[in-house]
Amino acid sequence: MSLHITELDCADLRFPTSAESDGSDAMNPDPDYSAAYVIVRTSDPEQSGHGFVFTIGRGNEVQSAAIQALAPHLVGMDLDTVLAEMGETSRRLVHDSQLRWLGPEKGVMHMAIGAVINALWDLKARRAGLPLWQLLAEMSPEELVELVDFRYLTDALTREEALTILTDAEPGRAERIEQLRAGGYPAYTTTPGWLGYSDEKLARLSREAVADGFSQIKLKVGGNLADDQRRMAIARAAVGPDVRIAVDANQRWDVPDAIAWMNALATHQPYWIEEPTSPDDILGHAAIRQAISTPVATGEHVHNRVMFKQLLQADALDFVQIDATRVAGVNENIAILLLARKYGKPVCPHAGGVGLCELVQHLSMFDFVAVSGSMQDRVIEYVDHLHEHFATPAVIRDGRYLVPSTPGSSAEIVPLTRQRFRFPDGEEWSDR
Amino acid sequence: MSLHITELDCADLRFPTSAESDGSDAMNPDPDYSAAYVIVRTSDPEQSGHGFVFTIGRGNEVQSAAIQALAPHLVGMDLDTVLAEMGETSRRLVHDSQLRWLGPEKGVMHMAIGAVINALWDLKARRAGLPLWQLLAEMSPEELVELVDFRYLTDALTREEALTILTDAEPGRAERIEQLRAGGYPAYTTTPGWLGYSDEKLARLSREAVADGFSQIKLKVGGNLADDQRRMAIARAAVGPDVRIAVDANQRWDVPDAIAWMNALATHQPYWIEEPTSPDDILGHAAIRQAISTPVATGEHVHNRVMFKQLLQADALDFVQIDATRVAGVNENIAILLLARKYGKPVCPHAGGVGLCELVQHLSMFDFVAVSGSMQDRVIEYVDHLHEHFATPAVIRDGRYLVPSTPGSSAEIVPLTRQRFRFPDGEEWSDR
Repeated sequence: MSLHITELDCADLRFPTSAESDGSDAMNPDPDYSAAYVIVRTSDPEQSGHGFVFTIGRGNEVQSAAIQALAPHLVGMDLDTVLAEMGETSRRLVHDSQLRWLGPEKGVMHMAIGAVINALWDLKARRAGLPLWQLLAEMSPEELVELVDFRYLTDALTREEALTILTDAEPGRAERIEQLRAGGYPAYTTTPGWLGYSDEKLARLSREAVADGFSQIKLKVGGNLADDQRRMAIARAAVGPDVRIAVDANQRWDVPDAIAWMNALATHQPYWIEEPTSPDDILGHAAIRQAISTPVATGEHVHNRVMFKQLLQADALDFVQIDATRVAGVNENIAILLLARKYGKPVCPHAGGVGLCELVQHLSMFDFVAVSGSMQDRVIEYVDHLHEHFATPAVIRDGRYLVPSTPGSSAEIVPLTRQRFRFPDGEEWSDR
Repeated sequence: MSLHITELDCADLRFPTSAESDGSDAMNPDPDYSAAYVIVRTSDPEQSGHGFVFTIGRGNEVQSAAIQALAPHLVGMDLDTVLAEMGETSRRLVHDSQLRWLGPEKGVMHMAIGAVINALWDLKARRAGLPLWQLLAEMSPEELVELVDFRYLTDALTREEALTILTDAEPGRAERIEQLRAGGYPAYTTTPGWLGYSDEKLARLSREAVADGFSQIKLKVGGNLADDQRRMAIARAAVGPDVRIAVDANQRWDVPDAIAWMNALATHQPYWIEEPTSPDDILGHAAIRQAISTPVATGEHVHNRVMFKQLLQADALDFVQIDATRVAGVNENIAILLLARKYGKPVCPHAGGVGLCELVQHLSMFDFVAVSGSMQDRVIEYVDHLHEHFATPAVIRDGRYLVPSTPGSSAEIVPLTRQRFRFPDGEEWSDR
């Protein structure tokens, strides 16, 4: 008997991370890491898919309401049809003419669509008995381009070009899958570098990062220049000359400030400067990149493929930082991976938060197998927070993500956490 | 005794406009014009401010939830303080670090902030006993720059440059106020041109528009090229050679399609092409503008001042189409008016929808008095829909907006409408 979708079961989950300054940076002094969580339930209680939007606290209830607004598009639909045509399913949600007005293709509504699409991919991978990266990596080039919405991309990437990229990457897929299974995928860690941490904690966590096998760490900057210089010197002393130190301003600066500040930090040779200014400022990123010696990275707040297209067209960045829950899910991220490949830029995903490590590892591994075919200059962010709440947490060994093997997208938060951290009535919050 | 804010009273109001194809275009076939409506209530029941976000139906409940999420920032606050420091009030909402994650500065959360800021301006103007345009037009240059958030703008417009623009425009303010009172502000009409209207209705409404004194009309295009050519010919025959016919593609095209389509329509000499592609595509608009002979207009979906800054820096448009409820309210629109003045581009606001005519007339009139000092090449859109629901509807005579004289921002929807069109329980909906 065929199954149908019965419910988008939404939950507002929040973690009181602000109590420890975990996640603190120049723009986000006191985040409470949160997930607007959705379970796509079906007429078979054993078959459901999990997805979420990562937020940092207030407004998580608005994000949940946006996810709920998508229920009429899916509830009652035949599950096989929805999952068999994930390109069409995605386009139907993204291009709903009335909901589109609330973006278009940006912000709360777009992220809600991303959560639901990701939950459907989780379910599709579970049903296939495969981890998501492998499900995607074993799809044909023709099936993969069908997932992509080329609207607004064709001046930079046509369907035919995308097909060529994917076809050219077909030879060697099996070898690269073996390579992933044997050696995992390189990571870097942001754990030492939160702005609210003391110098002692920074030094200690930096040393631990090296001992744990990481060859790249990242520090938050942009609060105060003298502090940033001191903190970079402390970190450099702790990690030695060969470990890369990236820095992240979290959108703190205007264009002239970014240029002046990064020129002042240049002697410390930062590996990249992340989010030097507004994520909307394509021309600003291009101007900054022209004026400084440090490579530029951005993307965690870049809201859709049209913005990534322009960042690449304008040669405004060196590293493409995709995010698993900012854009409209797996489908739009495949478009962005293809754009990055077309323009020859490495993808180094944003992670951390709640479950972003879990989700995004699948996209990088898929990229390695079936799109770029390369790990050169590519690293996935890793932050050692909140993984204990996931049914199948990301696993790091010697500074590398191990390959997920459990069927699905690794999105599932365990039931006990979903109960305890539910806002505002779960016991973690009602006790406060 | 001093007053304080007691409540953000939100309502989901929807009008069943899709039944008549009113508002139909190439991307929005069946809008139900809606307002996520907010009344900022105070400890004096006689003193409240009205604002809203215009949406086109589904998702209006998400927009309402986002407005409600702002209540903790305002409820309990001293009203005099909030209204005396509207620059600071605006920045406190826009830069809430946790809510900002949901944009940043875009989409549902940003529009919600706009509605609340606009409601506060409505209240401030009511208390001053002045229509909003006049309240703004009588503020000093120093007070006006204090309203603007220059973050991310300083590579294009500094506070000092803005101050110079406003100071240079001070002489003649009184004369221009008199000029406005005597002759109003020029309008154009979109009433004839909805895509769902028959050829006969298009011709009849086009003739009526000329008879009503309009010297510019606008047609929706982008569904089918042969239809667009036929419809432009019908409209041209109806209005004669001297009335401008602008066209609007509502984001229908990719960049290459926009160029080809507009070159095919060029013989009909459209006055402008509006929204030829994604509103996010700054470089795409610049490429289209370079390749066609028709001037380019955009802005109703441009989500913040950073995007307008770049459209101007990239010389990507000829007409700046501000929208009263897309960005973060009056304050951010003042920033955009200043940017347009700096780059020498005329502002021709988007209107229509629900109450957009009512709101945006204040911004154009303020611009004329205190910023650009000019009506040259400037027109405010007008659509003859839904004005009957407003307490002080926009008034058009001989193709011009008459100057609003009632205190406030003209945002107030009458109580009976707020009751009847409340979704889904108002009688207009519960009867369906």
